[in-house]
Amino acid sequence: MQALVYHGPGEKEWESKPDPGIELPGDAVVRIDTTTICGTDLHILKGDVPTVTGGRTLGHEAVGTVVETGSGVEDVQEGDRVLVSCISACGRCAYCRRGLQSQCLKGGGWILGHLVDGTQAEYVRTPFADTSLYKVPEHLSDEQVLFLADILPTGFEIGVLNGGVKPGDTVAVVGAGPVGLSAIIAAGLYGPGRIIAIDLADSRLDSARKLGADVTINSSSEDPVEMVKEMTGGLGADVVMEAVGVPETFELCTEMVCPGGRVANIGVHGHPATLHLETLWIKSITITTGLVDASSTPTLLKLVSEGRLDTTSLATHRFELGEITEAYDVFSDPAGTNALKVVLSAQ
Amino acid sequence: MQALVYHGPGEKEWESKPDPGIELPGDAVVRIDTTTICGTDLHILKGDVPTVTGGRTLGHEAVGTVVETGSGVEDVQEGDRVLVSCISACGRCAYCRRGLQSQCLKGGGWILGHLVDGTQAEYVRTPFADTSLYKVPEHLSDEQVLFLADILPTGFEIGVLNGGVKPGDTVAVVGAGPVGLSAIIAAGLYGPGRIIAIDLADSRLDSARKLGADVTINSSSEDPVEMVKEMTGGLGADVVMEAVGVPETFELCTEMVCPGGRVANIGVHGHPATLHLETLWIKSITITTGLVDASSTPTLLKLVSEGRLDTTSLATHRFELGEITEAYDVFSDPAGTNALKVVLSAQ
Amino acid sequence: MQALVYHGPGEKEWESKPDPGIELPGDAVVRIDTTTICGTDLHILKGDVPTVTGGRTLGHEAVGTVVETGSGVEDVQEGDRVLVSCISACGRCAYCRRGLQSQCLKGGGWILGHLVDGTQAEYVRTPFADTSLYKVPEHLSDEQVLFLADILPTGFEIGVLNGGVKPGDTVAVVGAGPVGLSAIIAAGLYGPGRIIAIDLADSRLDSARKLGADVTINSSSEDPVEMVKEMTGGLGADVVMEAVGVPETFELCTEMVCPGGRVANIGVHGHPATLHLETLWIKSITITTGLVDASSTPTLLKLVSEGRLDTTSLATHRFELGEITEAYDVFSDPAGTNALKVVLSAQ
Amino acid sequence: MQALVYHGPGEKEWESKPDPGIELPGDAVVRIDTTTICGTDLHILKGDVPTVTGGRTLGHEAVGTVVETGSGVEDVQEGDRVLVSCISACGRCAYCRRGLQSQCLKGGGWILGHLVDGTQAEYVRTPFADTSLYKVPEHLSDEQVLFLADILPTGFEIGVLNGGVKPGDTVAVVGAGPVGLSAIIAAGLYGPGRIIAIDLADSRLDSARKLGADVTINSSSEDPVEMVKEMTGGLGADVVMEAVGVPETFELCTEMVCPGGRVANIGVHGHPATLHLETLWIKSITITTGLVDASSTPTLLKLVSEGRLDTTSLATHRFELGEITEAYDVFSDPAGTNALKVVLSAQ
Repeated sequence: MQALVYHGPGEKEWESKPDPGIELPGDAVVRIDTTTICGTDLHILKGDVPTVTGGRTLGHEAVGTVVETGSGVEDVQEGDRVLVSCISACGRCAYCRRGLQSQCLKGGGWILGHLVDGTQAEYVRTPFADTSLYKVPEHLSDEQVLFLADILPTGFEIGVLNGGVKPGDTVAVVGAGPVGLSAIIAAGLYGPGRIIAIDLADSRLDSARKLGADVTINSSSEDPVEMVKEMTGGLGADVVMEAVGVPETFELCTEMVCPGGRVANIGVHGHPATLHLETLWIKSITITTGLVDASSTPTLLKLVSEGRLDTTSLATHRFELGEITEAYDVFSDPAGTNALKVVLSAQ
Repeated sequence: MQALVYHGPGEKEWESKPDPGIELPGDAVVRIDTTTICGTDLHILKGDVPTVTGGRTLGHEAVGTVVETGSGVEDVQEGDRVLVSCISACGRCAYCRRGLQSQCLKGGGWILGHLVDGTQAEYVRTPFADTSLYKVPEHLSDEQVLFLADILPTGFEIGVLNGGVKPGDTVAVVGAGPVGLSAIIAAGLYGPGRIIAIDLADSRLDSARKLGADVTINSSSEDPVEMVKEMTGGLGADVVMEAVGVPETFELCTEMVCPGGRVANIGVHGHPATLHLETLWIKSITITTGLVDASSTPTLLKLVSEGRLDTTSLATHRFELGEITEAYDVFSDPAGTNALKVVLSAQ
Repeated sequence: MQALVYHGPGEKEWESKPDPGIELPGDAVVRIDTTTICGTDLHILKGDVPTVTGGRTLGHEAVGTVVETGSGVEDVQEGDRVLVSCISACGRCAYCRRGLQSQCLKGGGWILGHLVDGTQAEYVRTPFADTSLYKVPEHLSDEQVLFLADILPTGFEIGVLNGGVKPGDTVAVVGAGPVGLSAIIAAGLYGPGRIIAIDLADSRLDSARKLGADVTINSSSEDPVEMVKEMTGGLGADVVMEAVGVPETFELCTEMVCPGGRVANIGVHGHPATLHLETLWIKSITITTGLVDASSTPTLLKLVSEGRLDTTSLATHRFELGEITEAYDVFSDPAGTNALKVVLSAQ
Repeated sequence: MQALVYHGPGEKEWESKPDPGIELPGDAVVRIDTTTICGTDLHILKGDVPTVTGGRTLGHEAVGTVVETGSGVEDVQEGDRVLVSCISACGRCAYCRRGLQSQCLKGGGWILGHLVDGTQAEYVRTPFADTSLYKVPEHLSDEQVLFLADILPTGFEIGVLNGGVKPGDTVAVVGAGPVGLSAIIAAGLYGPGRIIAIDLADSRLDSARKLGADVTINSSSEDPVEMVKEMTGGLGADVVMEAVGVPETFELCTEMVCPGGRVANIGVHGHPATLHLETLWIKSITITTGLVDASSTPTLLKLVSEGRLDTTSLATHRFELGEITEAYDVFSDPAGTNALKVVLSAQ
């Protein structure tokens, strides 16, 4: 088969590779029908994720068709159209049982396109198939569910649930890239009072408004802390989500949260931040971090299926699977291309 | 002043009565600008609420203007336009502190139009003014907030919060009168997967659809338990709300809830129901009851103010305050008039 | 092997039967080292549980040693000493994933000694072994963990967690049999203010005091509702647990709960109860039902292992496994024998 | 009267001052029967709390007797023996209503001995008396409730509740001074599996063991991160509480918490800490900060009253009120005196 293979920082190739097969009784092999590229893939290509070694097929998001299952697989079978979640979950360890599948103790978590070969290929082997694949209702298209593989549950679980969004809350989202936009969409599920999107790019702020933000702040020209305080009687936002991943934006979040409020970190960070405990110790705030668990995937699938959730507008560009290197070029230049998410489809 | 006075079962009169004044330091006197009639008022008139004695001014919902305050009142003052909540709260007792103001231990709870004179009058004395009146933002009309005096927080707190509605849930509401419809509106704040409204009147089911129900069942011709089970893979609804107040509908609710689900009783009951513990003991269900606490009123006001919540379509008929006996006639004949809520305005 | 086999109402026999073997890849076969008898077994023998058919080996609680595992079993192996939980859990269905294993959709739940052969035998086949057996730490005796197979998690999950016991709460437990006593022990984990035990037998009330009850009420001579109200300033108990299983005691519970309080039904009921909605609708109470899920078993094992939880004093009588019919005689006559739990050990 | 007055960094005097009187309708004046000194008072004397200005009477903890009440006070009256909480609460603002009285918007919060004159005096004026004083049950001594004025609710709310301690949890408390010890006592209310105390002083670790710690680590000679990980199968503690207030110990806490765990900051910090987001972003942790709200005071009083909570062993030294400067000398030299809390009583 053909696969997008990582060969060390800056090096990737769409190349031939043996088809994957069943290795463990819980495995399935899935033919990729639709996949996409994640910001994390760009991090890997920069060399920021040293646990990804040369020769690894990238990608951790897909919709596909099961072509083979191991002897221990009971809930999915050949021919099933499935969502391949970015999180593989053993389903039995203490963490999986409490809904923290990202911290799986038996070889699950984020492994696809990281510790095992991923989804930017014609086929993928998916471990723990029964607890990591989700059947797609027939009436839904691949694109309607594709973003439930990672960014929508990330925005929902790590942004909205960790942030404890409640009806009436003022919610500020710092960073309006694909994950920040997913958090904005997901925040709508909890009846917020006002959603404020903050970014440096007007095009992303436009998207934020279309997807549910009431107010947008371009932080290149406006002071977001001052503006958020002004809109909230001087108190700050009830919930602030960090969806960028640099120390400065994290610190900004801790400045614009109200006393008693919550800062939900979604961003992937490479550097430590300064935590101003000398002012925050008395402010009764909560800070959360986390990698998506995908524990909400069945709920999100139900909402998409009922027509109450729609993420298709995040797809800005479409390619055939074989055009993946072009797709990377487009996705890695959002300033130039206005790309949010790219969709890659097998012919 | 003129007031609608109860004179025993079946007897009421729009009659002259002395203006109310400050009796305790925490009191305010409010001029009624807009008021409405509640199903509970009809119960009182039937003699179902014996704690209401002859001579009592009815009504527990209003928007008005403060005309006088007691020496202990600090947060509202003469001239403030306020929402008069159906719940008066001392704000200091153990129940008020934990958000169960309906169970206030120091003379609060539902007292207006019940144990003290109410809001269907030109003026009303409101005890515990600081913790029972809510300033209305200038840009909102009386009608935009009037139903936050009782039925919207009732639907939200006793239906949606007690019912624990979560994103993706199938929510069944039995009874599509004003309170059931309020519960349907409020359920939308928690991203439900599907809202099912059940009633005997097609006109009410039409309203339910307009206000957010995805599916309606007329239980005079269809079997709601069977239909709900069919729609949910045989399991039943995650959350079922009882908004009628008779034993039969309560028992229906316990039949259509799924294992692990919740039945939130909103209805006012005059008779005991049968609880089928011989089947329910093993079903892991939760049943809740409650009178509104109005603890959510500031949140709901914020949502109305932000344009994210709108209850104005519940108002089907409008009258001048002096026409209140006509308004009662209309409101007490919903089958004939299709009335949901009537609005009464001072000239 | 020898097994205690049900042959219809009133009929049971300790008789020879073929050894169980692996039937499905997820099965294990466990040699029974220690088992016990549950009140539910007596219900079955009375014919109250028609889903148990003739020929069924009874018993759903044990500590034993794994002697064989199916090809799909990964977490337990031959030689492991394990707790056999009364709940078998597939671990993958929607209910198992949310911690409601009692409602398992794929053939789990309470099946041992009910729908498949149980633990009152020399060997038992245990389905879903990876998610239904729990390794016993070496330093713990069989008796230290035996009651974690059913009654302790039942008291904890269905009594204490469903009842929402919080520090400072007044907790009333109606029925001081083995399950009620387990609930009293488990309530101690949440810092209650006062635990009140209510029963008809002084000997059981003595046990209740030893296990943590502060106050006991013999309801044959005292009025428990009046006494509980007197002890709580007229309000009632914050949490009331029903651990008997008859309509009268359930109704008693709803009378002695305070406004805003919770009634947790633990008892197994054969008849409907009357729910006095005409007084309860306004009282803001919560009623819960449920079969144990055993989701707390790892937590309870940790507490026993740390020496912070001890249920051994519930064992009042000990027998060899072959003496099981004598053990039934003792256990089914608690008034005459003061039996709480009997322990049966393989030689 | 005599009072302990702050006169700028390093300067304090037990001196004569006019008796306080009622200033606002909600005030009470309380005669101090018993008071104590807090670590925060030492911070103030070092000049670390610039909002405390010269002339201020220090102290925010006391048990006393009401001698006068303002016209708006309803729940306490002359002659009542009361606990004076460190938190004054208006009871009406949005923060007080949600139980975050520390963030009171109408002049409450921590004001005694900070923004208004405090309790280290013969008399104190207490604003918002109805919602800030707590009647002491007759059968309890002053010393039994004194530490409920600040450190016990601090340990309970900011340590245990913010930390989300659950039955079975491994809880690590960094810093075994009075507040850390209070957190250890309070953690016992939630059935932890194991409590680990970490400090530099063996004498404090001895106290920790007596008050409920299962394991102690002297971090001057042992590596607490390594030891906690070893005790927890390499994962770390479920809940870690910071009760010191310096960047190093905070960072230590974030190293010893398990994936999915919680760090509850209790310490008062004067400097920022480094938050290692480059490792923590993926660890699904929660960090909380906060000043005590005293919302748990009624619960804690009930537990003391029922004999289920005892903090008297925290009192290591006793003085007459007039000996307060000696008491400060003892309290500010714990290494030399082994002082935990000092008790000062009016003659």
